[in-house]
Amino acid sequence: MAAANYRGAGAGGGAGGAADAGSSTEKWWQVHLFRGMVNDLRRRAPFYMSDWVDAWDYRVVPATVYMYFANILPALAFSLDMFTRTHSNYGVNEVLLSSVLASVVFSLAACQPLVIVGVTGPITVFNYTVYDIMAPTGVNYLGFMTWIGLWALVMHWILAVTNSCNWLRYVTRFPCDIFGFYVACIYLQKGVQILVLQGDAAPFYLSTMVAALVFAIAYFCGEISKSSLFNHYVRVFIQDYGTPLTVVFFSGFVHIGRMKNIGLEYLPTTASFFPTADRGWLVDFWNVRVSDIFLAIPFALLLTILFWFDHNVSSLIAQGTEYPLKKPAGFHWDLFLLGLTTGVAGILGLPFPNGLIPQAPFHTEALCVTKVVHDGDEGGDNKGHWQLKRTHVVEQRVSNLAQGLLTLGTMSGPLLVVLHLIPQGVLAGLFFIMGYQALEGNGITAKILFLVRDRTLTDKANPLHKIKRRWVLWLFIAVELIAFGATFAITQTVAAVGFPCFILALIPLRALLLPRIFFPHELDILDGPTASPFTMESVGGVHGALVTPEHDVTGTEDELFGASSSETTPRRAINGDESGNGGILSGDGQDGSRAHELAELGENRSVRLSEHRTRSSSAVAADNEDAASEARRLSGVSRRHMGKV
Amino acid sequence: MAAANYRGAGAGGGAGGAADAGSSTEKWWQVHLFRGMVNDLRRRAPFYMSDWVDAWDYRVVPATVYMYFANILPALAFSLDMFTRTHSNYGVNEVLLSSVLASVVFSLAACQPLVIVGVTGPITVFNYTVYDIMAPTGVNYLGFMTWIGLWALVMHWILAVTNSCNWLRYVTRFPCDIFGFYVACIYLQKGVQILVLQGDAAPFYLSTMVAALVFAIAYFCGEISKSSLFNHYVRVFIQDYGTPLTVVFFSGFVHIGRMKNIGLEYLPTTASFFPTADRGWLVDFWNVRVSDIFLAIPFALLLTILFWFDHNVSSLIAQGTEYPLKKPAGFHWDLFLLGLTTGVAGILGLPFPNGLIPQAPFHTEALCVTKVVHDGDEGGDNKGHWQLKRTHVVEQRVSNLAQGLLTLGTMSGPLLVVLHLIPQGVLAGLFFIMGYQALEGNGITAKILFLVRDRTLTDKANPLHKIKRRWVLWLFIAVELIAFGATFAITQTVAAVGFPCFILALIPLRALLLPRIFFPHELDILDGPTASPFTMESVGGVHGALVTPEHDVTGTEDELFGASSSETTPRRAINGDESGNGGILSGDGQDGSRAHELAELGENRSVRLSEHRTRSSSAVAADNEDAASEARRLSGVSRRHMGKV
Repeated sequence: MAAANYRGAGAGGGAGGAADAGSSTEKWWQVHLFRGMVNDLRRRAPFYMSDWVDAWDYRVVPATVYMYFANILPALAFSLDMFTRTHSNYGVNEVLLSSVLASVVFSLAACQPLVIVGVTGPITVFNYTVYDIMAPTGVNYLGFMTWIGLWALVMHWILAVTNSCNWLRYVTRFPCDIFGFYVACIYLQKGVQILVLQGDAAPFYLSTMVAALVFAIAYFCGEISKSSLFNHYVRVFIQDYGTPLTVVFFSGFVHIGRMKNIGLEYLPTTASFFPTADRGWLVDFWNVRVSDIFLAIPFALLLTILFWFDHNVSSLIAQGTEYPLKKPAGFHWDLFLLGLTTGVAGILGLPFPNGLIPQAPFHTEALCVTKVVHDGDEGGDNKGHWQLKRTHVVEQRVSNLAQGLLTLGTMSGPLLVVLHLIPQGVLAGLFFIMGYQALEGNGITAKILFLVRDRTLTDKANPLHKIKRRWVLWLFIAVELIAFGATFAITQTVAAVGFPCFILALIPLRALLLPRIFFPHELDILDGPTASPFTMESVGGVHGALVTPEHDVTGTEDELFGASSSETTPRRAINGDESGNGGILSGDGQDGSRAHELAELGENRSVRLSEHRTRSSSAVAADNEDAASEARRLSGVSRRHMGKV
Repeated sequence: MAAANYRGAGAGGGAGGAADAGSSTEKWWQVHLFRGMVNDLRRRAPFYMSDWVDAWDYRVVPATVYMYFANILPALAFSLDMFTRTHSNYGVNEVLLSSVLASVVFSLAACQPLVIVGVTGPITVFNYTVYDIMAPTGVNYLGFMTWIGLWALVMHWILAVTNSCNWLRYVTRFPCDIFGFYVACIYLQKGVQILVLQGDAAPFYLSTMVAALVFAIAYFCGEISKSSLFNHYVRVFIQDYGTPLTVVFFSGFVHIGRMKNIGLEYLPTTASFFPTADRGWLVDFWNVRVSDIFLAIPFALLLTILFWFDHNVSSLIAQGTEYPLKKPAGFHWDLFLLGLTTGVAGILGLPFPNGLIPQAPFHTEALCVTKVVHDGDEGGDNKGHWQLKRTHVVEQRVSNLAQGLLTLGTMSGPLLVVLHLIPQGVLAGLFFIMGYQALEGNGITAKILFLVRDRTLTDKANPLHKIKRRWVLWLFIAVELIAFGATFAITQTVAAVGFPCFILALIPLRALLLPRIFFPHELDILDGPTASPFTMESVGGVHGALVTPEHDVTGTEDELFGASSSETTPRRAINGDESGNGGILSGDGQDGSRAHELAELGENRSVRLSEHRTRSSSAVAADNEDAASEARRLSGVSRRHMGKV
């Protein structure tokens, strides 16, 4: 069933996905049901107590405050969208309650409590597209949505028990970067849309001015936190509270002086705790035609594809290689929980919550403890060259829970009034800064910046320098930007509801098509696993970019590299001990080298077995688990992914 | 006469100036009249042809374009002020013609053709303050201004022939920084004032939005030019044309879309080439009461003090130590020219032009050729640490002349129409970016930034680290900020016309009071000559911060350092070969060391002779000339002023 879903997605949106999946469908019943979920729980359970004890850390406070603003304000903007376009079926309280539900469930029960879950842009689009399609048929809209939720619950659970998350090993930086880029641009677009709606008189210009100022000040707070101004604690304070305080300040600012006479638009709010529409919290989903119940299945399938991708990608990015995480991940179990919240949200008539980008990685970032590392100043002659290094992440459940409870508190009357004081211009400014920050941390941006940077002024240690064929870098970025452009374009049309298939097709595109164009050692530098092998234990280890084509693709080396194979030596390097293979997995310190050999061993084994992947995936997971847990035991060092610049 | 003027200024505004000047007044007739001017011409004349030949350089183009905008737009803003507050006696055409006059005279005939001369903020204040004072008496205002100009001409010429610019050796970074800080803040204030005048409806908010965007984009152009993005040529292009193109773009921007319906205020213009008031270009200055002719003398004195300080400080900053200049300066001759333009401007009824801050240093900056120097990357491991180094300045007369001729062209009908398309919001944005850039390059800002910077992350080579008594740094900045605050405050009141005396008093304050508070080696780091010894040849060499008190002040060491003399050793260091003395004058390379010894020799001699300075100043100038020109011959290295961070 897992494979069937996957194949369905591949056939719907992209090339080559079906061929890959086809070889494994006949043996799907040999899947070790529940194995992924059980292993997730087995790995994570020992850390459960520490998740609460470790929360006794100051970093939880700023992370909570920032997440509260970064979660609730965009959610309110989305609620405004849905309110207008679903004829008041969804409103502020539904969106807030959905966030609260997700926060409580995931902070208490998830294997990955760092992942912030809430109402995203794509689900907003999904909701009103379904409304556009189904409302003319006279269907009970919320009842229909409930059935979508219930079907999706079933599908999520099937995907969870059949260990479908093992496919995540193919979700490299490539689709994650494209999706992250897409979401960031959606945020920027949303900001512009909000401003455009302010008319063409004083409120518009005041809103634009405020949005520009919010962006500028939040930007400078970010710059200060990266500069050498003040001391470390002041910089961290500015980084932590810069954006929230800016939002608060400008919400007050527009009420002073001559500005108070300008009729600004504020955030929309309604009566506290009640559904927006005139109904109880329980949706009358039994008042739906039987035919409509079954009509909900294809929508549920699309929703499931969207959530499987979006939630898992959020989890991957929030646990990316750049964060020195020490507690294990658990993708299968969290997918199961996501099914649960989807069903419950459906029954209560709430928009379905899932993993938030960019909030989830922002959350991990906010929980990072950093220190200053002097750079290139050996011999004591401090020339003021330095960089910030993340020493560890405060991994716990409290910040996620607390931001959810704050949101619940916001649903009470007095706080809704306060919320109503925030002008939409401030919201637009917040969207700009969040979009900008998400773009800033994106791998596509990093590669573009690398290309436009003066080559004589860049760090020679940057692995992208190792790519001799400069056009390869351009081509790779072009592929990413085209994929982004297509994704972005499709969500602007009525075909938006089918966009999950499209985005999912990026995975086989990466696994099957790109190795035909690029040398493996190039792909190895250009792309790589999003999360560290340690995090990827949950899904059976990482999928190296370079070893795949030898086993998965049936063509010979000549076919693969026929036209452009002017140099064949680099290809050989990947099987040796040289940089080709070492590039992606080499540890930072010497004591990581044994660990990394072990991890490679596990990884290579998993790839060699890929012809009967579905059967073996869980077995391989177990293999990798052994290798990687020994690796962890030996070193405890999180691996640096050198392809990330 | 020079000394008398100086004493008058000192008595008018500050402590201790009179005492210093008093010792030399009785011998003022021993001044070698014309010696400074003749020497200026003698030094500069050999370079006159090269000033035209060297202009065959691309850097002249961006410098001309930038100066055109940076000169004309603020001038127009000032003209708006004067137009309103002098009852239409001064308008756009007077201001433009004044700039043209100054540009032609100074670019053709000055010894320091890099110094951009035009209509400044202080002269605007002066003009309408005189109007406020004199208009109620029913005087012929423009005629009265002519007499001020003519008296000022006489005073300027007296100051020029009596070598008064030799006093400039006491004009260290201290008063220059304060004055530069003041002018930068005036620019920022002016920008805010322009915006405030836009009312409280849509035009106000659109103007503010545009001002913010102009500032932001010009700021990012500046940041890009300092970054490693693109290659050197693209960065230089962005730095050169970023601000002008931003101004042009936003002048068009506000005319598109929904913005074209907003009734913005534009720059005020009038009919081309004619005076604003209904008169010929020649002022009927004979129609002034005889009593009023003599009443003009005190005003002329204030004007002369202002111009002596403002023009010379502009020249000093535009030829600061940070610019690797190779052609000699000539302060006396330029003061003579300034008297000429003041008189001519008076006769034509134009506002009096003088040296522009921050435009003059911006002009030199725009003419600098820079290159990238890799920093701390010895041994070939390029880690991307680098800095920009100015290799030389394109010293010529064409850019100054060309921007003046462009201004003349702007006085023609069609271009006045174009000028009228620039909205005042863009102007405010330009004021913000110019004020910001002036502040960014200011010594006070640099010291404040040093203090708020994380000490563990700063370059240990920064000479400010050598000041052990941290509070000394705070106190020095406090003194500078108080002096700035007082200056700024006084120009907001009716006493504004007396502000030149106040600002001039900073010089004796520095020379006499500060050495009583700070150790010489501290002052040596905190302060120093604005221009290099090479430039200061024109005024008889630099005045070292440290050697003065021993010779000029009669008190003993105990009196000087009585209260705070917990440590006396540092004082001794200054006479040795240690850092105390070397700090301010040491060259960059080894071959500069002989040169610097010679320069010191000359300097020390000049100070020792200070009891009969008026007589000896020109002789010392000759001494220093020998020393410094030998120094130049030996090394050609421009000295780095280590106090500037």
